[in-house]
Amino acid sequence: QPEATVDSAEAAEFIRRVHTDQPGLGPAEPRLAEVAAEIAATGTYTHTPAELTHGARLAWRNASRCIGRLYWKSLVVRDRRHVTGADEIFSEVVDHLRTAGDRDRKVIRPVITIFAPAGPRKPYARIWNEQLVRYAGYRRPDGSVLGDPRYVDFTTAMAERGWQGKREAFDVLPVVVQTPGDGVRVFDLPDDAVWEVPLAHPDLPWFGDLNLRWHAVPAISNMRLSIGGVNYPLAPFNGWYLGTEIGGRNLADADRYNLLPLIAKLMGLDTGTERSLWRDRALIELNRAVLWSFDRAGARISDHHTESRHFITHCAKEEKAGRVVPADWTWIVPPVSGGITPVFHRYYAEIDQRPNFYLDEDAR
Amino acid sequence: QPEATVDSAEAAEFIRRVHTDQPGLGPAEPRLAEVAAEIAATGTYTHTPAELTHGARLAWRNASRCIGRLYWKSLVVRDRRHVTGADEIFSEVVDHLRTAGDRDRKVIRPVITIFAPAGPRKPYARIWNEQLVRYAGYRRPDGSVLGDPRYVDFTTAMAERGWQGKREAFDVLPVVVQTPGDGVRVFDLPDDAVWEVPLAHPDLPWFGDLNLRWHAVPAISNMRLSIGGVNYPLAPFNGWYLGTEIGGRNLADADRYNLLPLIAKLMGLDTGTERSLWRDRALIELNRAVLWSFDRAGARISDHHTESRHFITHCAKEEKAGRVVPADWTWIVPPVSGGITPVFHRYYAEIDQRPNFYLDEDAR
Ligand code: HEM
Ligand code: HEM
Repeated sequence: QPEATVDSAEAAEFIRRVHTDQPGLGPAEPRLAEVAAEIAATGTYTHTPAELTHGARLAWRNASRCIGRLYWKSLVVRDRRHVTGADEIFSEVVDHLRTAGDRDRKVIRPVITIFAPAGPRKPYARIWNEQLVRYAGYRRPDGSVLGDPRYVDFTTAMAERGWQGKREAFDVLPVVVQTPGDGVRVFDLPDDAVWEVPLAHPDLPWFGDLNLRWHAVPAISNMRLSIGGVNYPLAPFNGWYLGTEIGGRNLADADRYNLLPLIAKLMGLDTGTERSLWRDRALIELNRAVLWSFDRAGARISDHHTESRHFITHCAKEEKAGRVVPADWTWIVPPVSGGITPVFHRYYAEIDQRPNFYLDEDAR
Repeated sequence: QPEATVDSAEAAEFIRRVHTDQPGLGPAEPRLAEVAAEIAATGTYTHTPAELTHGARLAWRNASRCIGRLYWKSLVVRDRRHVTGADEIFSEVVDHLRTAGDRDRKVIRPVITIFAPAGPRKPYARIWNEQLVRYAGYRRPDGSVLGDPRYVDFTTAMAERGWQGKREAFDVLPVVVQTPGDGVRVFDLPDDAVWEVPLAHPDLPWFGDLNLRWHAVPAISNMRLSIGGVNYPLAPFNGWYLGTEIGGRNLADADRYNLLPLIAKLMGLDTGTERSLWRDRALIELNRAVLWSFDRAGARISDHHTESRHFITHCAKEEKAGRVVPADWTWIVPPVSGGITPVFHRYYAEIDQRPNFYLDEDAR
């Protein structure tokens, strides 16, 4: 897609912010003149490494749907703007996953890898996947789905390109890299880049026999990073999981793995009436299993009580620094036991501040 | 407070809607002329009983925070516009509660009692209580609270007016009626007007020994009803409870009865770590106890799964009738297990449609 010229005002505002936040960079004026000249000459400008790093962290800090923002300063920024070939991009994606989820040292780090920006009349690379690691979904003849129903279409598209899954419940999907030079390329992730955690339950012995598992690193790969008027369409980023994303949504949603009826049945609950709250009880045990299994595997994961408190701490810190915390209540409040988390009991400013991450209409 | 002249456009729009919705009333034009003349002469106009009834039902239908709107046509409207003395108002309030919660026939009905409207330069009556039935809160010397912490200030104000509570955990507060003629008057509700349900648990025998209870009829008494430009500052209304209002908020919130730590301890849960999800497990058992106890007492109560489905049905019906359903996601999604209710997984129109209910700044 053709990109318009960079907005000079947005660029200038960003440069000033960087220099205010990082006095060590000196006065903003010389850099402002440089940027203005570069935009006038080329329609865009090139971020310094310091600008890129700070810009990515500010984008996280401004992500109004993210409850994990207390840690925004710790984001590891991998500058890969020079990488443009499909093979090289994929290889960087693999490195990203290895750095983000270090199985040997039992560490999960928040990481972003930033590839080349979009520029005026310059086509750019993208990744089709919503997240770097997700599971395939196969529709059975009877209409039911093996695996993750959310990715049935994606899985079908991969099959049409010759990809073959194992047809199991947790088949890691291939990564699709599309670049101006190499077109559409499909890559299988090496096993050692995908940290997965088998799920069991501290008290329910049959739970492990369900052979459930989930990947340890949630890495969103289809959002555009926007910094000071410059767009980075390919900039996959990850944090660690909040338990409810897995136990309250991915494995629980009726249009995802839909495991509550099965778990409730195995728990011996009365599923004949809603009044037994069997859904709620199965939901809690599923979420306990997720937290317990990730802890056992040494894969960092937050529980919704602790992370909610951390977010309140983040809000207090930001307000003390004279900043507003943009936040979307409907995303911040966890899908499990929302009312008993402290984030439930307040209002937030719903504003769009840049830098930020955006989901484009045309992102696949 | 002095009230401005009624907005003629809003009045006319409302009259047209009533005549469209109820063709039996005949063409709107004659009534429109009548209303316009009355506003011109007096600054306001008087609703016919049919307008009042339909207007109150539309106000419910437009209440964007209410999940219970499938039943909007069933609202029982008690026209008490002629009642203005404090004793008479209180007596009507008592009748309202008896009609709304009929203990002998085990019926809870949605009811609204509409007292005199505000008019230009006409002072009006109000009730100070948020709800007709609520429990007192007494601060102990050590700072802790016996009863409902939300009503400590209200309880103190009552004590200053000479009211004496039993100093128990569930003392029903008196009703404060303020009228232009009688000033501020404090009334104790007769026992037979307050249906209360003692709480026990289907599986946990010790639960009943906690001596918890809750009232069966939630009747909001501090919202202004606005119909076709006319304001009714005193129009208490009730539905039946959604279980999570009691088990997920009133008895669970840290700044209300805060019962989760106690219940978790009695359940033998590990409260030393959030990872045991002890809060969530105690929350679910508390909510089971509420539903089970209300069922046992024959007091109608909804569970959040069923009521969410009913709300989705309501949305579908309204959309079929060509109407938008104004709804506030943050209020519609229940505070317990939000993500597994169908109301979680969609967006709503956040618009303010009249007739409606409003909470005034100066409502006590
Ligand atoms: C460090 C641990 C982190 C935690 C616990 C965390 C938690 C979450 C959660 C629970 C959500 C909602 C997800 C959903 O409901 O689908 C979310 C969304 C989001 N987070 Fe974070 N996050 C973390 C790190 C990060 C990082 C490193 C970034 C970017 C640099 C980030 C940016 C975002 C964005 C942009 C969204 C919105 C995604 C969308 O619109 O679909 N988060 N986060
Ligand atoms: C019939 C059964 C009903 C159910 C199950 C129901 C359920 C609810 C629930 C769960 C809430 C949120 C309460 C909270 O979180 O504090 C609510 C709010 C509300 N409901 Fe209903 N409701 C019912 C009947 C009614 C009736 C009869 C009316 C009016 C005629 C009404 C008008 C409202 C209004 C105005 C609010 C917002 C209150 C506020 O802003 O504090 N509801 N309802």
